[in-house]
Amino acid sequence: MKMIHVLFLFALVSFTSHASVNDFCVADLKGPDSPSGYQCKPPNTVTVDDFVFSGFVAGNTTNTFNAALTSAFVTDFPGVNGLGVSVARLDIAKGGSIPMHTHPAATELLIMVEGQITAGFMTPTALYTKTLKPGDIMVFPQGQLHFQVNSGNGKATAFLAFSSANPGAQLLDLLLFGNTLPSDLVAQTTFLDVAQVKKVKARFGGRG
Amino acid sequence: MKMIHVLFLFALVSFTSHASVNDFCVADLKGPDSPSGYQCKPPNTVTVDDFVFSGFVAGNTTNTFNAALTSAFVTDFPGVNGLGVSVARLDIAKGGSIPMHTHPAATELLIMVEGQITAGFMTPTALYTKTLKPGDIMVFPQGQLHFQVNSGNGKATAFLAFSSANPGAQLLDLLLFGNTLPSDLVAQTTFLDVAQVKKVKARFGGRG
Amino acid sequence: MKMIHVLFLFALVSFTSHASVNDFCVADLKGPDSPSGYQCKPPNTVTVDDFVFSGFVAGNTTNTFNAALTSAFVTDFPGVNGLGVSVARLDIAKGGSIPMHTHPAATELLIMVEGQITAGFMTPTALYTKTLKPGDIMVFPQGQLHFQVNSGNGKATAFLAFSSANPGAQLLDLLLFGNTLPSDLVAQTTFLDVAQVKKVKARFGGRG
Amino acid sequence: MKMIHVLFLFALVSFTSHASVNDFCVADLKGPDSPSGYQCKPPNTVTVDDFVFSGFVAGNTTNTFNAALTSAFVTDFPGVNGLGVSVARLDIAKGGSIPMHTHPAATELLIMVEGQITAGFMTPTALYTKTLKPGDIMVFPQGQLHFQVNSGNGKATAFLAFSSANPGAQLLDLLLFGNTLPSDLVAQTTFLDVAQVKKVKARFGGRG
Amino acid sequence: MKMIHVLFLFALVSFTSHASVNDFCVADLKGPDSPSGYQCKPPNTVTVDDFVFSGFVAGNTTNTFNAALTSAFVTDFPGVNGLGVSVARLDIAKGGSIPMHTHPAATELLIMVEGQITAGFMTPTALYTKTLKPGDIMVFPQGQLHFQVNSGNGKATAFLAFSSANPGAQLLDLLLFGNTLPSDLVAQTTFLDVAQVKKVKARFGGRG
Amino acid sequence: MKMIHVLFLFALVSFTSHASVNDFCVADLKGPDSPSGYQCKPPNTVTVDDFVFSGFVAGNTTNTFNAALTSAFVTDFPGVNGLGVSVARLDIAKGGSIPMHTHPAATELLIMVEGQITAGFMTPTALYTKTLKPGDIMVFPQGQLHFQVNSGNGKATAFLAFSSANPGAQLLDLLLFGNTLPSDLVAQTTFLDVAQVKKVKARFGGRG
Repeated sequence: MKMIHVLFLFALVSFTSHASVNDFCVADLKGPDSPSGYQCKPPNTVTVDDFVFSGFVAGNTTNTFNAALTSAFVTDFPGVNGLGVSVARLDIAKGGSIPMHTHPAATELLIMVEGQITAGFMTPTALYTKTLKPGDIMVFPQGQLHFQVNSGNGKATAFLAFSSANPGAQLLDLLLFGNTLPSDLVAQTTFLDVAQVKKVKARFGGRG
Repeated sequence: MKMIHVLFLFALVSFTSHASVNDFCVADLKGPDSPSGYQCKPPNTVTVDDFVFSGFVAGNTTNTFNAALTSAFVTDFPGVNGLGVSVARLDIAKGGSIPMHTHPAATELLIMVEGQITAGFMTPTALYTKTLKPGDIMVFPQGQLHFQVNSGNGKATAFLAFSSANPGAQLLDLLLFGNTLPSDLVAQTTFLDVAQVKKVKARFGGRG
Repeated sequence: MKMIHVLFLFALVSFTSHASVNDFCVADLKGPDSPSGYQCKPPNTVTVDDFVFSGFVAGNTTNTFNAALTSAFVTDFPGVNGLGVSVARLDIAKGGSIPMHTHPAATELLIMVEGQITAGFMTPTALYTKTLKPGDIMVFPQGQLHFQVNSGNGKATAFLAFSSANPGAQLLDLLLFGNTLPSDLVAQTTFLDVAQVKKVKARFGGRG
Repeated sequence: MKMIHVLFLFALVSFTSHASVNDFCVADLKGPDSPSGYQCKPPNTVTVDDFVFSGFVAGNTTNTFNAALTSAFVTDFPGVNGLGVSVARLDIAKGGSIPMHTHPAATELLIMVEGQITAGFMTPTALYTKTLKPGDIMVFPQGQLHFQVNSGNGKATAFLAFSSANPGAQLLDLLLFGNTLPSDLVAQTTFLDVAQVKKVKARFGGRG
Repeated sequence: MKMIHVLFLFALVSFTSHASVNDFCVADLKGPDSPSGYQCKPPNTVTVDDFVFSGFVAGNTTNTFNAALTSAFVTDFPGVNGLGVSVARLDIAKGGSIPMHTHPAATELLIMVEGQITAGFMTPTALYTKTLKPGDIMVFPQGQLHFQVNSGNGKATAFLAFSSANPGAQLLDLLLFGNTLPSDLVAQTTFLDVAQVKKVKARFGGRG
Repeated sequence: MKMIHVLFLFALVSFTSHASVNDFCVADLKGPDSPSGYQCKPPNTVTVDDFVFSGFVAGNTTNTFNAALTSAFVTDFPGVNGLGVSVARLDIAKGGSIPMHTHPAATELLIMVEGQITAGFMTPTALYTKTLKPGDIMVFPQGQLHFQVNSGNGKATAFLAFSSANPGAQLLDLLLFGNTLPSDLVAQTTFLDVAQVKKVKARFGGRG
């Protein structure tokens, strides 16, 4: 009987020694990043808490956008490293919006939870826009410029799913107006008036 | 002025003629599937409704599992074709559960919305289990056997995000007990008793 | 001797029957597209001309942008289907520019051929800009908003390489000002003034 | 003449300096793993022995399963790192089996070498099972639950090819019965009787 | 009871309707190929025989190479479509060889079954060669030029696993000497003598 | 006013903290390589010069091939790390050529800039060859053996784009004749005469 147990353990080892290596790769956020994600924590130091994110709650919307994004991306949630998916929570106060932005190379799915959001994305030849209520989902294909506006009478909440563990969020205003790109160059490459460029730059911290 | 307009249109055509081809590929569900997904609908027939899914509401939980899965996978929601992400809604009545299952090659992220769920996944050498409440997220890495049990006092709701446009859902009971695999073969390859196999087969429609 | 020849042909068939299937997949542009690209033309109808693109010459720059993009993307050049790379030629007259744009999910490499171009891309926290001359190359990572301005005294030419057979080109002005998205919604989601939005819309054909 | 030789060496360097970097990436198993595999050993320390695995012989089948799996996965065979393929040898004594298991995200191809194996995999709606003899191959698509039983009169041997350098092997019995998941929770999520769960747990080392 | 059964069936449908779509994609070889593989046969027409290949036996080695390759690639074995793995059997008579060849973009793993094979691959800066016997495995990384020679006293057999469902096999002699590329052009681009080129062309059917 | 600014900065942080991580990954060439590329430099040490390569000029063609390849691959140009694209410049003096070679797993696009090049690639069953002039582009699909010969009356220049950040370049002569593979083994696996093998080996530094 004991012999069988020992042999069984032997079999167990031969079957399982590699099983934990590739099935997941919890990020070691202290180590370097790579094109495929962060290095893996040693499997024996991984606990269930690496696979659980807490604090997926409403962010503070008292800001310029009257909106908040609470992200569970790989840098917040190391368990999603290398797995090609992450989520975020979007809260928009009445009158607020998530202005035009892109997620380079990540698709976004928006699940309406509360309130009403008018959202859309544009291609050079088409506009896809819709007013969404709880029970609705909208997909914004990878890399498309899109926006979300609270078009209801109260606050709005949505959950977002991304096809990347680290989708980022590139707000157009920060790209155009939040740095030192000279105002006349911004104007030339956007067809906006220089005065307009300077005005919005003042709001988003840009100079030049 | 008109000349400029014509020239502008010329520029517009030269810049945009290909833009709508690869940025998205809405599934033509009447056509054949391929390893990378369904064929694309002609871009000029695509409307915003291809990118919006309605009916992401609680399913009927009056069934064997006291649970319901409402999916927005590519076959329900052609706009996610080829984009590597999809979502589903999980409703579990008090006492119910989503029994042991896998999504072959898709990672699942569970966002708690209401109630309390005890969930977990297992590797050959470790068990990762947690009781989750609203504000919690748990990730089940690709291909791992996992379960979700309503461990609270009322109904529970969660939203699921998957790293695939078509993650499927392979319920272990259906795989083992829902077909004509002979009971003694099931017993031999699971170490269950034949009597137990036959008993559960009766529940899940299996024969043999 | 003849016997050996026959046997040799037999061997040749057994070794080569599948070789032409996966090594390339020339697009059948009359068939449907899919997430991985177009269907393949039957290998026996493929000729060298499927792998050669002619007409990679200067485009007409007499237009709104004083610039022209001549593309050899999959819809122009079926031989690159499924191969993850394509090229384009950029000609910018004196004073012209390629305004702000993105290629969703494709990286761009710019090789300077003639003249001088000032180019750059922006992230939310950084600006990367450089004045380029022949002998210089600049890379614009996937999905980043970028621009190219002729900053020299004559015309400028560059060759572009993309990490996609179909990178598209999303000009920001067309996205924001070339469709029916209401001007107040554009203003709200860009922090531009409504009057400015309407002014640029007039130039790019937008209404509303 | 000597001049030409020197110039030739110059050419050789300019052509080959990068050639050894990406063509292969032998695993440095002492370094960390990443989502794409292990770090590469420095190319100048790589020898032919990194690309050769010896000891692909019958394992000891005197164990609970009367079976042995001899693996040449990346952790055994660093030369396959990052190459998306690996192999294993399966030996099953008379009466033995490889019980129900999955390889998360890896497809398995089984080549019969000796004896007779009855194998199969199940989806929620179908059973695919076959008795295999030398000359037969069977494919088990990625992530599918499958089994192999020696259904012949002597020992059976098969070679397995996987679409991953590190496919793992998740034996269902270890997942369900080899850990501390409470027996009533196992019962609830499998529809097995608690007594049955406890009985098999005793065999596979589970508690609770 | 019947009600429960009906509800159970409802649950079964809601859980399984998409499960068979993405888990596998058996090739419809009568349809077109695409960059990701062939279109899928309708799931309801798939049988276990799509996942089983028979005839993985020794090929006829009475030919120019004294060798035979028996392939189970996607065009022979539609069940591997889209799964990124396939296998072949190699038989080499005494004195025979598989001459220099590549598999574009597919890695090859060779498992020795019988006899002795001397195999190797070359990079611009290194040679990796080994004499292999049963129990040995050798990996030839993707796209590398490699060869296998029967260096033993009898016939030799090996099984090959590839990291592609359709790896092809590009025999160098056929590429250089089996077509109408002019002999002087072959000579110029190989540094071989024209007379040698013409001599080998006569053997491999080339002209010009 | 100041309050708004502070809140705005808060929003800026919450939106941008992850944005710079995955959008690019400039290679830290002092660190180890991995199957997906080099580790990333810390984002705060990245400057525009990481994204610019200078020195894309004609190489010295006074060598055995009368040709030069100037590469901007990841080891030359760390900004392309993980982005799946790179470029090179090809200069061929009158009478020179780039002899037969492959890029394992990378497709090559050749853009003619000056002069005339006759180029081609071969499969086991077909030859694709063309004489190219400025304005022409030719694609050589991944892993195919190909060549480029200056067939004009002066020097020729082309720019090359690759579907890999590190395509390498495997010159056939170096593989066959530049190492210690015994001449009789080369002869056996190429069907060349031993005397021819030894003659070319003397040119390319091979022994044995």
